[in-house]
Amino acid sequence: MSEKGWSQLWLDYESKISKNDGETADKVSVAVKGFDADNRVIKSAERELKKALADLDITVVLEKDSDISKEGYTVKGCAELSQNDEYKETVGNSEVAVIVKASDENGALYGAFQLIRSKLTKEDVATINVSKAPSNPLRMMNHWDNMDGSIERGYSGRSFFYENDNIVINKRTVDYARFMASVGINGIVINNVNVKWAASDLITIRFFDKVKELSDIFEDYGIKLYLSLNFASPIELGGLEVCDPLDSGVIKWWENKIKEVYDHLPNLGGFLVKADSEGRPGPFTYGRTQADGANMLGDIIANYGGIIIWRCFVYNCTQDWRDTKTDRARAGYDYFKDLDGQYHDNVILQIKNGPMDFQIREPISPLLGGLTRTNQMLEVQIAQEYTGHQIDLCYLIPMFKEVLGFKTYCQTENDTVADVVSGRTMGNKLAGMAAVINTGNDYNWTGNDLAAANLYGFGRLAFDTDLSSEEIAREWVRLTFDLDKELEDKLVDMLLCSREIYEKYSSPLGIGWMVTPGDHYGPSVDGYEYSRWGTYHRADHLGLGVDRTDKGTGYAQQYYKPNADMYNDPKTCPENLLLFFHHIPYTWKLKSGKTLIQYIYDVHFEGYEEARELANSWKAFEGKVPQRTFNCVSHRFELQVNNAHEWCDQVNSYFYRKSGIEDELKRPIF
Amino acid sequence: MSEKGWSQLWLDYESKISKNDGETADKVSVAVKGFDADNRVIKSAERELKKALADLDITVVLEKDSDISKEGYTVKGCAELSQNDEYKETVGNSEVAVIVKASDENGALYGAFQLIRSKLTKEDVATINVSKAPSNPLRMMNHWDNMDGSIERGYSGRSFFYENDNIVINKRTVDYARFMASVGINGIVINNVNVKWAASDLITIRFFDKVKELSDIFEDYGIKLYLSLNFASPIELGGLEVCDPLDSGVIKWWENKIKEVYDHLPNLGGFLVKADSEGRPGPFTYGRTQADGANMLGDIIANYGGIIIWRCFVYNCTQDWRDTKTDRARAGYDYFKDLDGQYHDNVILQIKNGPMDFQIREPISPLLGGLTRTNQMLEVQIAQEYTGHQIDLCYLIPMFKEVLGFKTYCQTENDTVADVVSGRTMGNKLAGMAAVINTGNDYNWTGNDLAAANLYGFGRLAFDTDLSSEEIAREWVRLTFDLDKELEDKLVDMLLCSREIYEKYSSPLGIGWMVTPGDHYGPSVDGYEYSRWGTYHRADHLGLGVDRTDKGTGYAQQYYKPNADMYNDPKTCPENLLLFFHHIPYTWKLKSGKTLIQYIYDVHFEGYEEARELANSWKAFEGKVPQRTFNCVSHRFELQVNNAHEWCDQVNSYFYRKSGIEDELKRPIF
Repeated sequence: MSEKGWSQLWLDYESKISKNDGETADKVSVAVKGFDADNRVIKSAERELKKALADLDITVVLEKDSDISKEGYTVKGCAELSQNDEYKETVGNSEVAVIVKASDENGALYGAFQLIRSKLTKEDVATINVSKAPSNPLRMMNHWDNMDGSIERGYSGRSFFYENDNIVINKRTVDYARFMASVGINGIVINNVNVKWAASDLITIRFFDKVKELSDIFEDYGIKLYLSLNFASPIELGGLEVCDPLDSGVIKWWENKIKEVYDHLPNLGGFLVKADSEGRPGPFTYGRTQADGANMLGDIIANYGGIIIWRCFVYNCTQDWRDTKTDRARAGYDYFKDLDGQYHDNVILQIKNGPMDFQIREPISPLLGGLTRTNQMLEVQIAQEYTGHQIDLCYLIPMFKEVLGFKTYCQTENDTVADVVSGRTMGNKLAGMAAVINTGNDYNWTGNDLAAANLYGFGRLAFDTDLSSEEIAREWVRLTFDLDKELEDKLVDMLLCSREIYEKYSSPLGIGWMVTPGDHYGPSVDGYEYSRWGTYHRADHLGLGVDRTDKGTGYAQQYYKPNADMYNDPKTCPENLLLFFHHIPYTWKLKSGKTLIQYIYDVHFEGYEEARELANSWKAFEGKVPQRTFNCVSHRFELQVNNAHEWCDQVNSYFYRKSGIEDELKRPIF
Repeated sequence: MSEKGWSQLWLDYESKISKNDGETADKVSVAVKGFDADNRVIKSAERELKKALADLDITVVLEKDSDISKEGYTVKGCAELSQNDEYKETVGNSEVAVIVKASDENGALYGAFQLIRSKLTKEDVATINVSKAPSNPLRMMNHWDNMDGSIERGYSGRSFFYENDNIVINKRTVDYARFMASVGINGIVINNVNVKWAASDLITIRFFDKVKELSDIFEDYGIKLYLSLNFASPIELGGLEVCDPLDSGVIKWWENKIKEVYDHLPNLGGFLVKADSEGRPGPFTYGRTQADGANMLGDIIANYGGIIIWRCFVYNCTQDWRDTKTDRARAGYDYFKDLDGQYHDNVILQIKNGPMDFQIREPISPLLGGLTRTNQMLEVQIAQEYTGHQIDLCYLIPMFKEVLGFKTYCQTENDTVADVVSGRTMGNKLAGMAAVINTGNDYNWTGNDLAAANLYGFGRLAFDTDLSSEEIAREWVRLTFDLDKELEDKLVDMLLCSREIYEKYSSPLGIGWMVTPGDHYGPSVDGYEYSRWGTYHRADHLGLGVDRTDKGTGYAQQYYKPNADMYNDPKTCPENLLLFFHHIPYTWKLKSGKTLIQYIYDVHFEGYEEARELANSWKAFEGKVPQRTFNCVSHRFELQVNNAHEWCDQVNSYFYRKSGIEDELKRPIF
């Protein structure tokens, strides 16, 4: 990955331009109706259309239509337009005409990208007929980039935003904004939630000019820039003694600071805050609630139209492993549920999909929908921290679909997570989805070329939660590569089964955390077992799993009744979460009739075998994808096979050594 | 430890000066006979005597006596001198006279320090009567300091030799040399055996001036400076393609390079080389033997009187944990035994005390004495890498005494390790002991003030292997503190039992390696179990330990017969090494009648309890030692108690969870 430059990902217009015509004439015409033709976002839409459709004789009309919902659009090709007369003059002699209507500029841009996708995937744009409005008002990417250029949990090189404590802006920055807009992202947090070192200065004069420049680039593509905030700024920057959110000096300091920030960055979306978490300072230090902290900032930033996104990742990270009463899974709910209704209108809680931390399989956080009077958004992680470091293939959209489809029972209908985080459940306007992003300055942006499916997929899913995992995968494959139907199907299949394969060879049945401490790649069954992180599997010679029922930590009771009851009983608990909720003997019979221990052996051998099959399947793509991509992905599959091998043998050997129970099939266990 | 400055360790003359006389007159007189009074080492001896004895009315005669063995001395006080007449004129009217005779300048300096120790520990110097000659010709300290100021396995702050890729020389450097000379050290390797970054340039013009300056300071105290060498220097510095030791271009390069080095550093002792180890380049890369590599350098450096110290820490560090045939313990012997007799006269192999890596308990390396026609020296580690990071108290001299006292059976007599490494066994001149040093730029030099007992003790032991652990401990306590008899005894006792306490609460019966990977502090029972490092305990539900008998890896057979037989049979194997040599069922009865599993439980509870007692004992020292020392050590004992607690509970829980066998005493196991 030491190549210079960067790929065009799913917007590789050049490679998709039809070469049949010889050189492409500039026959694309874009007409603007009702919008200000000089608007920066409209101009971006026009620019994209002209580049992407360069080999078509086409006129595209971008037209304002206030009946369409916010950021929504309708795109119709001439073959679908009944009242083409209306546009006759505009489209002139173009072979094809497409009308993009939208309520606002972002809608127009998204409509343009819809048309571009249609063209790039070789559909007949004359027959296009799509109406869409985004499922979620907020569709955000969170960067964990540090200003020294490192990226926390980054697996794709260094940051393309920062180098040596400075902000870097170049053509790559613009391309990044284009890619994000093309999948509907409208908010980006540009710095690590763990605000460290120089990043504390992002809200000072030292960096305002550069942040403004970046913000302007984002604005061209309808994206708002957000900053992660250091809650201790009054101390670190202001020289105050405290950062108590109810201290009048602290409030005054923030009033001045936020005014100063908005004087320089009038379009700033707001702040993301990780407080009282994993060693970060926060309101708890001063005996204040999380709401006290969030509202104080929210009230000040409200004057500038900004919002406060407050992360709910608060738990005791100095737990004693001997303590079986404390349960990290409970922490989010325990800390935040009682404050439901106390958060102000421009404050939104950002809630991780599961109660622990981005494991390959977790139950859905009971805070989602557990809070009924609080703005809330879903946080997922496409950076593959626990899911293979963008070495192992792990297409995460199926996981996110499961999360979104989960019925919370917070009310009788419109009660899925998708309903809750979109604002449909409570009718709130501040709602949405955020992903911890998987990008870096590698040529291919995401380390593994195939990991770009998660980057693309998250955006598309956040915009349209009704899309299926397969639809998204297929779109991405078609946009990125140029494959025949058979290989396209194969690649889509590989993506679709990849998460389950990773799950099979890693930790079993929802228990999680059997990863190498710190690094989080590869197995270490006991790595987190005697740690302070609240992450235990409690395996002994008879069984394993954590009792989170009403007889155990009581975590299961944080759900609404039908779910609580389902999880509480090992017979009704979904088996893929069995060990998350229950301590189960090795001899327990699963629904298949297999014992737990035999299942562990079988599924690990299976996962390893399937990882080898994945690697093997990729061989068919040589010559069918760019050689660079082929080599990069091949190398990663090699590493994945080794990883799966280690997982399989270590987990099986661990449980064999502990249980003393032989594999019925006598396969090699060590 | 952020205090400025540094302590005077066991040479705190100021604090030991008798204050009864009011001010101390300058009544010390030093006379030199037979030596050149301007010799730098003699002048150092004189300087030390004048400072240390400043409150005595005394004359010390430093006299050359060629009948005394190399670096040896006799020190006699006037009360013991029968033929005082001979010195009457010299000593004049001094109240006391002491005659130090020595064969050479180093002997005179060591004699002077012998006298100083006597004075500082409040003995009557008039009655001193000691004759000593060093047990070992080479008595060395190995620094693992990097030129960026970091120290590999350093637990006492940063390097005092380096900062930002430069060599730092100041008054502390001089004090360091004084301290080392005071305990008889005569060789110091100033840079990490893993020669990295700027350290490769230590043999270039970039650093010659500074190294020479350092070398001069050492020379003042009879110490030779050595450098760790990067075997790949011909490539890294010379731009050659290879560093093959038999390549004529490579040999030529080294000839020129070593000439250049000695042109600038005429007193350089030689080079220490870690080749083909843990990723370091070496002769194996080119299909050459370790002897080929060592002899090539040895032959060149012989022209300048230098020596090559070649480390024997060569093993396969990419082992597959599934492989039970390969045994890291075997590696040193397997790689080096066949080359016995092939090493040239100015090459010496530096052999770690055990076959693995500085664990709290290991058998003695079978290479020691296994080689009978090769210069060899013993390497130990006073940096407490695996023995508590200079947080936990662990006085290591008892371990070194065991090593030295080990009967190898390489011949019928003079066959202990002490005999072998001193040169007595084979009559070789190049022989000795080296320690990986435990110092840094902390005020107290060693992180924990009490860890200085290892620094002091190693030097004293290398000089005089007949000294007992207790004698050394008592000397150090008396020199360092000013305690009444009861507290002195208590502190000596604490030191003497500390290694066993650490052993009790950490990994049982010689198995080792149950430490946190990488860091090596604190427990992680499985931390190295599935790794590539060759470090396994092989615990399953029935038992644990590594079969290294003739039925297993065969390691036990690397010893001479009586030892081989003893280790091969679990009934005769010393129990403290039982799990190193044998895979033993939990229900195995130890000699005490206890089962193995019950022993594991008991010894861990005991170790934790005894760690608490240590911490408790220290409370009595408040007000009796400097408050800074008291606080520093108190804090470390607090941490040690936590560490012992974790070890105890994790090891016990691990084996309970694995064996399913209850503690007979029903103590809390998790």
